Amino acid sequence: MKFEHENSYEVQDKIRQFRAAILPIGAVEAHGPHLPLGTDNLLAERLADKLAARTDSFVLPVLPYGQVWSLRNFPGSINVSNEALIRLLADIGESLYQQGFHIFTMVNGHLGNAVALKEAARVLYERVPELKVFYFFYPGTKEITAQVRESSAAHGTYMHADEIETSYMLYLAGEYVDMSKAIDGAPRITAEADCTPTPWEEITSSAVLGDATLATREKGEKIIERSLDVMAEMLLRTKRALEDGDHQDSTD
Amino acid sequence: MKFEHENSYEVQDKIRQFRAAILPIGAVEAHGPHLPLGTDNLLAERLADKLAARTDSFVLPVLPYGQVWSLRNFPGSINVSNEALIRLLADIGESLYQQGFHIFTMVNGHLGNAVALKEAARVLYERVPELKVFYFFYPGTKEITAQVRESSAAHGTYMHADEIETSYMLYLAGEYVDMSKAIDGAPRITAEADCTPTPWEEITSSAVLGDATLATREKGEKIIERSLDVMAEMLLRTKRALEDGDHQDSTD
Amino acid sequence: MKFEHENSYEVQDKIRQFRAAILPIGAVEAHGPHLPLGTDNLLAERLADKLAARTDSFVLPVLPYGQVWSLRNFPGSINVSNEALIRLLADIGESLYQQGFHIFTMVNGHLGNAVALKEAARVLYERVPELKVFYFFYPGTKEITAQVRESSAAHGTYMHADEIETSYMLYLAGEYVDMSKAIDGAPRITAEADCTPTPWEEITSSAVLGDATLATREKGEKIIERSLDVMAEMLLRTKRALEDGDHQDSTD
Amino acid sequence: MKFEHENSYEVQDKIRQFRAAILPIGAVEAHGPHLPLGTDNLLAERLADKLAARTDSFVLPVLPYGQVWSLRNFPGSINVSNEALIRLLADIGESLYQQGFHIFTMVNGHLGNAVALKEAARVLYERVPELKVFYFFYPGTKEITAQVRESSAAHGTYMHADEIETSYMLYLAGEYVDMSKAIDGAPRITAEADCTPTPWEEITSSAVLGDATLATREKGEKIIERSLDVMAEMLLRTKRALEDGDHQDSTD
Amino acid sequence: MKFEHENSYEVQDKIRQFRAAILPIGAVEAHGPHLPLGTDNLLAERLADKLAARTDSFVLPVLPYGQVWSLRNFPGSINVSNEALIRLLADIGESLYQQGFHIFTMVNGHLGNAVALKEAARVLYERVPELKVFYFFYPGTKEITAQVRESSAAHGTYMHADEIETSYMLYLAGEYVDMSKAIDGAPRITAEADCTPTPWEEITSSAVLGDATLATREKGEKIIERSLDVMAEMLLRTKRALEDGDHQDSTD
Amino acid sequence: MKFEHENSYEVQDKIRQFRAAILPIGAVEAHGPHLPLGTDNLLAERLADKLAARTDSFVLPVLPYGQVWSLRNFPGSINVSNEALIRLLADIGESLYQQGFHIFTMVNGHLGNAVALKEAARVLYERVPELKVFYFFYPGTKEITAQVRESSAAHGTYMHADEIETSYMLYLAGEYVDMSKAIDGAPRITAEADCTPTPWEEITSSAVLGDATLATREKGEKIIERSLDVMAEMLLRTKRALEDGDHQDSTD
Repeated sequence: MKFEHENSYEVQDKIRQFRAAILPIGAVEAHGPHLPLGTDNLLAERLADKLAARTDSFVLPVLPYGQVWSLRNFPGSINVSNEALIRLLADIGESLYQQGFHIFTMVNGHLGNAVALKEAARVLYERVPELKVFYFFYPGTKEITAQVRESSAAHGTYMHADEIETSYMLYLAGEYVDMSKAIDGAPRITAEADCTPTPWEEITSSAVLGDATLATREKGEKIIERSLDVMAEMLLRTKRALEDGDHQDSTD
Repeated sequence: MKFEHENSYEVQDKIRQFRAAILPIGAVEAHGPHLPLGTDNLLAERLADKLAARTDSFVLPVLPYGQVWSLRNFPGSINVSNEALIRLLADIGESLYQQGFHIFTMVNGHLGNAVALKEAARVLYERVPELKVFYFFYPGTKEITAQVRESSAAHGTYMHADEIETSYMLYLAGEYVDMSKAIDGAPRITAEADCTPTPWEEITSSAVLGDATLATREKGEKIIERSLDVMAEMLLRTKRALEDGDHQDSTD
Repeated sequence: MKFEHENSYEVQDKIRQFRAAILPIGAVEAHGPHLPLGTDNLLAERLADKLAARTDSFVLPVLPYGQVWSLRNFPGSINVSNEALIRLLADIGESLYQQGFHIFTMVNGHLGNAVALKEAARVLYERVPELKVFYFFYPGTKEITAQVRESSAAHGTYMHADEIETSYMLYLAGEYVDMSKAIDGAPRITAEADCTPTPWEEITSSAVLGDATLATREKGEKIIERSLDVMAEMLLRTKRALEDGDHQDSTD
Repeated sequence: MKFEHENSYEVQDKIRQFRAAILPIGAVEAHGPHLPLGTDNLLAERLADKLAARTDSFVLPVLPYGQVWSLRNFPGSINVSNEALIRLLADIGESLYQQGFHIFTMVNGHLGNAVALKEAARVLYERVPELKVFYFFYPGTKEITAQVRESSAAHGTYMHADEIETSYMLYLAGEYVDMSKAIDGAPRITAEADCTPTPWEEITSSAVLGDATLATREKGEKIIERSLDVMAEMLLRTKRALEDGDHQDSTD
Repeated sequence: MKFEHENSYEVQDKIRQFRAAILPIGAVEAHGPHLPLGTDNLLAERLADKLAARTDSFVLPVLPYGQVWSLRNFPGSINVSNEALIRLLADIGESLYQQGFHIFTMVNGHLGNAVALKEAARVLYERVPELKVFYFFYPGTKEITAQVRESSAAHGTYMHADEIETSYMLYLAGEYVDMSKAIDGAPRITAEADCTPTPWEEITSSAVLGDATLATREKGEKIIERSLDVMAEMLLRTKRALEDGDHQDSTD
Repeated sequence: MKFEHENSYEVQDKIRQFRAAILPIGAVEAHGPHLPLGTDNLLAERLADKLAARTDSFVLPVLPYGQVWSLRNFPGSINVSNEALIRLLADIGESLYQQGFHIFTMVNGHLGNAVALKEAARVLYERVPELKVFYFFYPGTKEITAQVRESSAAHGTYMHADEIETSYMLYLAGEYVDMSKAIDGAPRITAEADCTPTPWEEITSSAVLGDATLATREKGEKIIERSLDVMAEMLLRTKRALEDGDHQDSTD
């Protein structure tokens, strides 16, 4: 399923057959003492692998640099601009379309990338309207997460190096987690943080936005598998619609 | 040495100690029947690992998308624009500098990226003049390559999926090479190809610009090791100069 | 409080005294049969007036064009790009800072503008770091809205021409609402709509994302006043901090 | 005639009938002691209203921010760049065309916007060639102004807060003029001011480029009505041509 | 005085002495049957030479490509965008400043360049505020032209291949004029042409906006010499001010 | 053959007949004590003239400003950015195509322009695919140069003010060369100079990258004439192909 392991001679037929390419996108970013800087890359990549296996899609190499404005001043974070990301993603999408792909799925492991992904998808909607573009950031997990979590969420949208993300890692890339170093981050997120540019050093010194000690592999598995169901369902429905279109064409 | 496996709590001291970050850059691109699409990524990444080991540097995650204008119409190639690349690389370099790095080394596995890398380095030269930026595409290998090669070079500058690049792969990532499929590409490169935009489908149908069947692990090792010597020497000299500067400061 | 009614001779002293400028931002956009195209402009402007009265701030003229991608194909919508908006807003903010303002508050009446406002605020964070920038889209209203609403929300984030927004209008600009035309929109928002570019003609024919017939002036008043409390508190705290800084300076 | 007071359900038929949208564009800018900062917005808006009444056109909400380079350092001025304006105006024009408009008329109240308006019109000329775009800055008033004025013009092109512009205000928005504060500005405009970047603080301290005390409502009326004749004639001729085209099509 | 004939070893002292660089800017553009396509380049270059001789300035090589939107569809015209011009001119100005120049004078032979020149001058005003930038398009010639001309002007601002411009050519570059082919252009310029994008094929088939047969060398000489007086006076005054500044510095 | 000496009335037929336009591109740049700053402009222009004579092409006016990053700090150099150049060149090419040209040949006299020329050619390849674009920097001279030269080359790619370039000047523009000042530059070009941004003041104080005293008119003639053969052959072959296409069309 790894696109870059294919060779040029054999790949064309497979593109025609698979039609769908999955791009994992992450970031290099501080994730506290118990998770590696590459956490979002690992999550995006492994999630993409699982999604590909369920949907007969190609997995592209992970794009490992993301928009890390909020945590850019924490040790180890590497930040790139929305503009650079949007341009690169739109280029990749257009190139995939020219290669014969009809579905371009971005599996995002880092919330800070969300704006760039949505914007790139809209750029592609104009430029190559026949390419179906998805941008996924753990879709369909709101309810299951509420059921599973033991600590309360630090914020309505952010989730970072906490009970939930650490559980994801324990399920998808447990060999990179050191639970002996996990802490309860206890951030102080003021209402202002949603209304004015707020580097996260103002709200946390650890970058752990919650209680990572409560993370378990099982919690991660439950949420991730639910999200995989949701993503796979959307992809497979789109593939079937494409096939129906083909069938339609051939019987006209 | 893998930067993304570090965690935020411990990485700051190591950045101060290492001072140098190495970014491997490749591409997803057609490389004939015997080499995978990700050849340039594999080469860049493994070369970066070796260089890091010799110079006490961090290796950043590989940037796996490159400018593939010439081969963009070959099955499996993914092309991104110089502009997207330049912007992304300049962002990464600036962010590294803010993290405390003093040396930013780009190890390039794909010739098509050369313009973007040099331009990004010049952007950084203005923006963060204290950051030393290297862009390496197998430097110092001209003579040793001439000695080692059995087939003549198809072109003065280009080298692609041929005796030489295949030898690199045999040395650095042999498990991805299928020599049973290697061919003699025999391209017809006209003088015009250097003077007018020329997609490579006009000069080759295989994307193999030479005789890949002559490739051996030994040839690859000789050239790669020579290049590593050259790169390591430049990096280490720069590191020593930085240390001398520190010493100077502390004795003033 | 209307900045554009001031004259150049007298305004300088008032800028020194007020320090804060409020920019209402809306859009021209389809809002169903019962609300005018300029709904978001009216809301932003009247909300800004109330906020200014509570905080001794200037109100700038409303910026009446916004990013209306989702509804751009509905009759009467006018859409401008994020890029145009970001550039304009950053220019306005920089100019205000050069005029002597220390607080730039954007009161947003249209959710589609949220990305541009946040991005413009970050641009200004780099360009004129001493300017405090707020971007407000009805902050602090989550709980009160849940209490007040009778119909369930059509979507986790979107709110458009429904029970809630219509209530806002009844409270802030009731003379522009024709409740006799209000309808229950009943949109069909699929999970996909959050994961792929989805023009709203795919989910609604009326642009009314909920049951507008349930709107009342009282509901609007409750939510809007709560939001005004939250916004005013943030602004006044920032103003006090500036004054403390002044006092500090003068006693040093 | 106010577009933003229409609702989405009824507006489509009216667009088909009117075909023409008028965008007033002004600025927030120092206009001496007797005129408000929003003078150019008031003029543009009221002029647009009168033009719409004569030509059965829609009036869009005023765009109240303009390029104010020359007076940007005067108290109360807000300056935005040509680039931001051009982009925004081109977006608005393209969106209007997609809504079914065939004529996009920009009524400009601020000379500093002239470059951006002309450039935006040329951008639209390429992008949507079927959209007729007008940019009006008091066209056809040269002779009548020469007849009416008592003081001599301070400059060949500039007119600012002087006898003429104050007369416009007395006619169109007299309630915002305080003639008791009107002064004779007597600027010293050197020949150099047309040949090198010259902020107006170098040529005037009042921003009044002439003798505002000579302004009268009657002078304003004469010039403004002449200009309205000229603008209305151009618009109506264009509308008739469109209708002839329709008739032509329907009889073919 | 020709900068490009200097050599690098000797030029530095002369830059210190002259301080001023003059850049002629023209265009390749249709100028009727009697004038060559390069008319504006010839005028700009020869005018620059004369100005340099009077002011001890360097003349840079002519920039021979300009914004020719209006005549771009006439045979022989070459059109470049304002954006390309602005960027190039700002780069040249910045580079001159870094070389030690303090005055950058653009002598423009083509009205269509005026917007780009003024905008570039404003960019430089921010970027290198110590560089004095002039943009000249025959300044100070309004009155003398009115006296000299026999035919009436076709337009308030435009002057093209007519009595006046042809007279300039007869004076400055007579060897390129073929008066036997001169015609009376008699354009029909409507009022609309100033209010909507109007390619000149709509107003003229010859590109001659007036009666070229009335042109004489003497008329050209009178106007050009007057303009030279005006330009030289501004430059010399600026140079004296710089020298006074130096003197000031050395006696402090 | 000089395009700018043509007039608009007669040029259209000649464009149809010639079909090819040649743009000489140079730079203003330090070239040591014996060569003028405008060396690259002189070379490009004279080479273009000779090529035009052999191929029945038009010569456009020289574009005399180039990318001079490496030598920008040497007295007399004027540097413009790649971005400005690319944009300008793409505009020129597009305009030529609209004028009826089918071949756009850039004759480059300055190596620093090479990246911009190639990039502009690729932009045009997308924008006006039917326009054939050549970028020439002394093509086909590798072998003859190796035969002719007496001193060894200072660098694999660079050639500047040395035996070779001075020989070019002696052949093409000898009246601007002062051989009495020619020196042996003896630069110290380290391996690093190809791997990190390196202003040339770090490798030479004279800007003469070789032994200019060995230059002769004969050497220049041999290399230049060889290059002219190569360029003319490519152009003429392209012209014949166009004519065959016409013939084909007319007999269909």
